[in-house]
Amino acid sequence: MKKRKVIFMNASISKNDFMNALTKVASALPSRATSIYALQNILLEFKEGEGAIRISATDLEVSSVVDSPATVQEEGSLAVIGSKLIESIRELPDDEIILSSSEKNVLNLKSGKTRFNLRGVSREEYPTLPVLTGEKSFKVSSKVLKEAIKKTIIAVSVNEARTFLTGAYFTIVDKKIRLVSTDGHRLALSDITAGEIGKEKKNVSVIIPARILLIAAAAFEPDEKITISLSETHVVFSGETGRFSGRLIVEKFPDYQKIIPKKFETSIKINRQVLLDTLRRVSVYSTGEMTPVSFNVKSGKIFLHAESPEFGDAQDEIEAEVKGPAIEINFNSKFIQDVLKVLTGDELNIEMSSKIAPALFKTDNDKEYIYILMPLRG
Amino acid sequence: MKKRKVIFMNASISKNDFMNALTKVASALPSRATSIYALQNILLEFKEGEGAIRISATDLEVSSVVDSPATVQEEGSLAVIGSKLIESIRELPDDEIILSSSEKNVLNLKSGKTRFNLRGVSREEYPTLPVLTGEKSFKVSSKVLKEAIKKTIIAVSVNEARTFLTGAYFTIVDKKIRLVSTDGHRLALSDITAGEIGKEKKNVSVIIPARILLIAAAAFEPDEKITISLSETHVVFSGETGRFSGRLIVEKFPDYQKIIPKKFETSIKINRQVLLDTLRRVSVYSTGEMTPVSFNVKSGKIFLHAESPEFGDAQDEIEAEVKGPAIEINFNSKFIQDVLKVLTGDELNIEMSSKIAPALFKTDNDKEYIYILMPLRG
Repeated sequence: MKKRKVIFMNASISKNDFMNALTKVASALPSRATSIYALQNILLEFKEGEGAIRISATDLEVSSVVDSPATVQEEGSLAVIGSKLIESIRELPDDEIILSSSEKNVLNLKSGKTRFNLRGVSREEYPTLPVLTGEKSFKVSSKVLKEAIKKTIIAVSVNEARTFLTGAYFTIVDKKIRLVSTDGHRLALSDITAGEIGKEKKNVSVIIPARILLIAAAAFEPDEKITISLSETHVVFSGETGRFSGRLIVEKFPDYQKIIPKKFETSIKINRQVLLDTLRRVSVYSTGEMTPVSFNVKSGKIFLHAESPEFGDAQDEIEAEVKGPAIEINFNSKFIQDVLKVLTGDELNIEMSSKIAPALFKTDNDKEYIYILMPLRG
Repeated sequence: MKKRKVIFMNASISKNDFMNALTKVASALPSRATSIYALQNILLEFKEGEGAIRISATDLEVSSVVDSPATVQEEGSLAVIGSKLIESIRELPDDEIILSSSEKNVLNLKSGKTRFNLRGVSREEYPTLPVLTGEKSFKVSSKVLKEAIKKTIIAVSVNEARTFLTGAYFTIVDKKIRLVSTDGHRLALSDITAGEIGKEKKNVSVIIPARILLIAAAAFEPDEKITISLSETHVVFSGETGRFSGRLIVEKFPDYQKIIPKKFETSIKINRQVLLDTLRRVSVYSTGEMTPVSFNVKSGKIFLHAESPEFGDAQDEIEAEVKGPAIEINFNSKFIQDVLKVLTGDELNIEMSSKIAPALFKTDNDKEYIYILMPLRG
């Protein structure tokens, strides 16, 4: 007579759905370097009647929660090492996966003739995710949000010593949500007019860490309705895909308005892709981040020049529509390439005033975005 | 009045041809870690009437020489930093490139409106490549050579302490060229019957470093006639693509014949791709190179099992045609996957005798190749 096993939990799930959800949740797993071992786990919660398995991860700074469609036969919960779970699911041969647990804290995975037994820890050993009641909330389409994040994130500082620059400033200006980022050398500003901001017209000014913005931008599908909720200390992005939350940077953001010039002398229209290709080329000879590429702007043409003390120099030229006086100005080539890569459309506008005054980059394609760049000394 | 510049050399070349040739030559550049700075250069030699630019690189252990079609107007030679040259050529906008030198030791590159000036060193500062007069030579088709190298190289040792195992043994057996490699845990043997070995029927037994074999296998096109020339100390592979040479490992190779078993008890026919997929799956739970995958061979079936002390265990099964007694045997999963990836065809034969005796892997597809693998203790 066979000994009857106690089934602690049981569900079937599609491999594709599961992998998709796991990938979204995994972005909240701690990086190996800074890890507390228990946080390397992904929490799985099976609830009957909900038609889904809830999948969660956190590194205590950010948290991700995604519900993945599943047929649940027996309730239960368990946390297993995230990387190993993902590796296991990826290798299973069939699309239907039976998840169960016949022994305490062991997850059984079955698909085709393959059986995996993955050791885990009980739910009690896994940290409780912070539950947030957002005091202020905003609604926005995921497409617009993803676009605004993509264009703003490029100017966030990677220098952790100045924490307040490692996130984007989230504020309300003229009934629009505004994201602003700066690393001290450049500034990116994206307005979201398509959002619903309810009664929260002013007094909203928080700094959202770049990592949470990137997680949200990557996780949401392009056609979701996103709610952004803010408390004093936390932000939550929630949509159909799931809930992505994290701690705010509670510091003061610099007065970015002062950095944006109001008037310019020289105005340039230029093909975005041609400028990007040319910059990439001459940058072979602009070794080191601080080696400038010089722009010699004349009527109808821009001459570019880069020189590496070690290897030699590069010259190139581009046709452009130039209004206003001729100017010679030096830029960090990478900082221009960054914005050219996230913009769309053929036509780029550059406005500048002098060798030492900040220049402004924008396109007719997106009137709600500007990029300000400080020139370099020659 | 413009000052007339002296032109030291001048040629035009197609970007595609040039990139292709540079990529093949670059494999002989020293790795950054072990570099003598002068060797980071690639030597360019322009000769009138030859219709080509000769491109060479060496790290003194191996050398590559490739001729790339070009129209040469003025003779000359110059050495420039290889990585920077390749980066520059890759970024040039048009297919036609004008190479010239208007200043001593500076290479001018022109294409479209782009001008690069790349500083170099004169030919005199660049090492002279060893010229080899092979005393023994063999002819073989590049297709067969590339295939034999690919299947042999997997068993070469990466442990530099045993230098004689870091290359493949090149010898003549029964009028065939034979390549043998072993790392002490496994042995790969490839025969080349398609070769012309001339009068050199015996007394050929050298060890060719893996790096030279890999360079040659990667550089030659599939339809070339390759000449392999050997001196006491060097080997040269030459074909239409170019000449790739290097220093031999002048040491004694172990008596590999003793390692090859002559008789087996159990004989298995199995689908190669199914076994590869299954091994990849169960290996998620065979963490660490020395954690074995156990094969439980029964009539008509093989049960696989892997267990990681940290994460859990995996079970799987595969249908197989089994002749002879049942057997349980453990292998390093990676070492089987290595050979399954280089073999072709559906059907794989595995021959084994006991838990502790070496097993043999081969296919009906390639009767000139065998792979011997030592089992692991359970």
